[in-house]
Amino acid sequence: MAAPSTTGSTLVSAQDVARAREAVAQGAPLVQCLTNSVVQTITANALLAVGAAPAMVDNVHEAAAFAALASAVLVNVGTLDETKAQAMSLAAGSAREHGRPWVLDPVAVGGLEFRTRIARELLDHAPTVVRGNASEVLGLAGAGAGGRGVDATDGAEDALEAARGLSARTGGVVAVSGPVDVLVHGDRTVRVAGGHVLLTRTTGAGCSLGALVAAYASAEPDPLVATAAAHLHVAIAAERAAARADRPGSFAIAWLDELDAVGPQDVLDGAGRLA
Amino acid sequence: MAAPSTTGSTLVSAQDVARAREAVAQGAPLVQCLTNSVVQTITANALLAVGAAPAMVDNVHEAAAFAALASAVLVNVGTLDETKAQAMSLAAGSAREHGRPWVLDPVAVGGLEFRTRIARELLDHAPTVVRGNASEVLGLAGAGAGGRGVDATDGAEDALEAARGLSARTGGVVAVSGPVDVLVHGDRTVRVAGGHVLLTRTTGAGCSLGALVAAYASAEPDPLVATAAAHLHVAIAAERAAARADRPGSFAIAWLDELDAVGPQDVLDGAGRLA
Amino acid sequence: MAAPSTTGSTLVSAQDVARAREAVAQGAPLVQCLTNSVVQTITANALLAVGAAPAMVDNVHEAAAFAALASAVLVNVGTLDETKAQAMSLAAGSAREHGRPWVLDPVAVGGLEFRTRIARELLDHAPTVVRGNASEVLGLAGAGAGGRGVDATDGAEDALEAARGLSARTGGVVAVSGPVDVLVHGDRTVRVAGGHVLLTRTTGAGCSLGALVAAYASAEPDPLVATAAAHLHVAIAAERAAARADRPGSFAIAWLDELDAVGPQDVLDGAGRLA
Repeated sequence: MAAPSTTGSTLVSAQDVARAREAVAQGAPLVQCLTNSVVQTITANALLAVGAAPAMVDNVHEAAAFAALASAVLVNVGTLDETKAQAMSLAAGSAREHGRPWVLDPVAVGGLEFRTRIARELLDHAPTVVRGNASEVLGLAGAGAGGRGVDATDGAEDALEAARGLSARTGGVVAVSGPVDVLVHGDRTVRVAGGHVLLTRTTGAGCSLGALVAAYASAEPDPLVATAAAHLHVAIAAERAAARADRPGSFAIAWLDELDAVGPQDVLDGAGRLA
Repeated sequence: MAAPSTTGSTLVSAQDVARAREAVAQGAPLVQCLTNSVVQTITANALLAVGAAPAMVDNVHEAAAFAALASAVLVNVGTLDETKAQAMSLAAGSAREHGRPWVLDPVAVGGLEFRTRIARELLDHAPTVVRGNASEVLGLAGAGAGGRGVDATDGAEDALEAARGLSARTGGVVAVSGPVDVLVHGDRTVRVAGGHVLLTRTTGAGCSLGALVAAYASAEPDPLVATAAAHLHVAIAAERAAARADRPGSFAIAWLDELDAVGPQDVLDGAGRLA
Repeated sequence: MAAPSTTGSTLVSAQDVARAREAVAQGAPLVQCLTNSVVQTITANALLAVGAAPAMVDNVHEAAAFAALASAVLVNVGTLDETKAQAMSLAAGSAREHGRPWVLDPVAVGGLEFRTRIARELLDHAPTVVRGNASEVLGLAGAGAGGRGVDATDGAEDALEAARGLSARTGGVVAVSGPVDVLVHGDRTVRVAGGHVLLTRTTGAGCSLGALVAAYASAEPDPLVATAAAHLHVAIAAERAAARADRPGSFAIAWLDELDAVGPQDVLDGAGRLA
C-alpha cells in the first residue's frame, strides 16, 4: 500500500504526475509565449529549467505560423496593446486549428475594461487551460468584484463556481491559484497544496507557471493531469528553494535551480499535496 | 542625546525616515509603473522586496483609469515611442487629478531630442518628485552639456541650481543621484551619502529607486521625507549587499534581499547618512 | 617557447585577445542595443560586467542620432515589428555612415519569413559582425533547412560555407556559435572551443555575446580578433561559473560575476581554446 504522501488524488495519481514530468523532460516541448513584458525573462528561464524551450514569437506577422510549429502556446495579457491583442488572437486561433494546446493567463482581468474585453474574446478559441488567481477567474467569467490589478483579493474557493462555468464553456481546464490551488475540468476538481509565500514576492512566478502548464499540456494528453503536474512541480521547487533562501532575490534564483532539479521521482514523492 | 549617526539632518530626522519605512511596509502601496523595457523586472522585484506591489499598466486604454486606483505612479522615459508617451501623459494627468503622487525619471534626457521634449511636456503635470542623475536634471531644466545616455557626466552638486529651478516650477522634490545624492524641495535641501558603486553596474538600480520613491511618496505625506527615506533605504541595502557580494551578478541579488531585510530600525540606525 | 595553452591560433594570438580585453576595460565602450524584449536585462548586465555601458535606444526618433554617438551598435531581431525594424535599419545605416562597428544577430532567421526578410535587408548595411547559430547563419544566407526557432539544429561546421559566402558579401566577420564556435573573416577562419552547456539553458546568453562582440569591435580594430576575444571571454567565464554553480538559475548569476572577473591575463591564459 502506498503511503498517503505519495498517492495523489483519486482523479490524478502520483504515477500520473510523475509520468507527465518525465514526458516534459523527454519531449523538450517548444512553447511559444505571447506574454507580458515584465516576465519574459523569468518565463523563458523557467521553461529552460524544466527542460522545455521558449520562443517569444509575438508579432502579427509570425504568431499564427509559429503556433502551427510550436508544441504549445501561452497567451498572457499582462501588458497589452491592440497589435499584441491581434497577435494573441492569431496565435490562439492557429493553435486550436492545428491541435496545439494553449493556455490563457488573464492577468488583472476584471478590474480593467480593455484587457477584460480582449481576454473574453480569446475564450472563443477554447483555451486548453485558463490559469489565474481567483479575482482574475471571477473577472474573466463576469463575476466578482474585480481586483486591484495582479493581487488576488478573493480566495481560490470563492472562484470555484466561476471556474466550473468557464470550464463548461471552453471544455478545458480552469486553474485558480491560491495557497491551495483549485483545478477544475468539467466535473473533475483537484486541489494542489504546498508552495511558498515567497512565490508571491517574485515577479513572474505565477506567469511562469502558466508557461509550464503549456509545456506540460503538450507532453501529457490529459489536461487536468498536465495542469496538476505543473502546479505540483512549481510548489515542490518553491518549498525546496525557500528551505535555503529566505529572501526574495535569492529565492527566485534558488527556485529556478529547483525547477531544474525536481524530477519524476520528486513529483511522485510529493504527490501527497494533491487532493 | 542621540548619537550623531542616528540624528538625520536638521530637515529630515531619523524618526521621520523610520516612520516612512514603517508606513510603506504597513500600507503595501500599489505602484503603477510606466517604465522602460530594460528594467521592468528588477523594478517590480524591488517594489515587492520593500513590501509594495507593482503593476506595469502602461497602455493608452488603461493608463488613466489605473492611475486613479493606484497608490502612486512612476513614469520613466528610458524607452519611448509616441504611444507610450501618450500613456505616460494620461497616467500623469490622472495621478495629478486624483491626488496620487507621481515620480518622473528623465532617463537620458538632455542628449536626445525626442525624449527631452516628451519629458519637458510631462513637467506640466507637476511631478511630486523628479529623480535622475545630474546630466538628466540639467537636461530636463534646459541647462547642461547633455550626457552620452544614461551616464552622469556632471556631478550632483553641479545640478543644484537646476534642481532648485525645477522644484520652483513643479512645486515638488527634485532628487539628483550621485555619490552623494542631493534632494531639493523649494528652499529645503537634504543630502544622502552612502550606497555603493556596484549600484551603477546593475542595470535598473537607479530606475528601481524611482519606483521606490513613488511607493514612499504614497505612504509618507512629506515628499522630501519620502524621497530621503527611499534613497536611504536603497543606500543601506546596497552597502549591506556589497559586504557579502563583490561582483555585479550576485550583488544585484543580494541587494534585492537587503531591500527586503532593511526595516524601520535599520533606517533609523542609518540616518547618519543624511545631511 | 610559449606553452600550448597560451599560444592562441596562428591567426589570432594570445596577446591579441588579451590586448582586446584590456581595450574594452580601458575604453568603456557605449553599446547601443536594439535587441529583443526577452534579453534586454541580461544584455545590459553583461555589458556592465565587462566594463562597457549599455543604452537601449531603439525608437525611430533617436536610433540614427544615437548610433552616431555610440561606440558600437547591436541589432538583434529576436522580437520584431515594423517600427522596430525601421529603427534597426536607421541605426545600422547611421553606424555604417559614421564608421561605428555594428553587429547583426539573426535570431530564428530562416524559419520565419518576416524576420528573415528584415534581416536580409539589414545585410545591405554591411554588418561588421554577424553572430548566430548554424541554423540562423544558414537561414540568413538562404541555405539550410530552417530551424524551429532559436535552437540550432545544424552543427556549426555545417554553416562554414554559408558563413564564407556571407563574409564575402558583407566584408565582415561571420561567427557561428556551437560547442566549438567557427569564426570566418574572408579567407581567415578561427575556432573557439570551451564554454559550457549551461549557457544554452540561460536565456539571453547568446544574445549577450552579440552585445559583447559589439563592445569588443569598438575597442579592437581587427574585427576577427575582436570577435574571437569576445567569444573567448564568454567561454572562460562560463567554465568558471559552471565550476561553482551547476543549476541554471545560479549559473546565470555566477556567469555575470565571472564576466566581470575575467581580465586580460585570464584571456591570455585561456587562449589555448583558439585554433
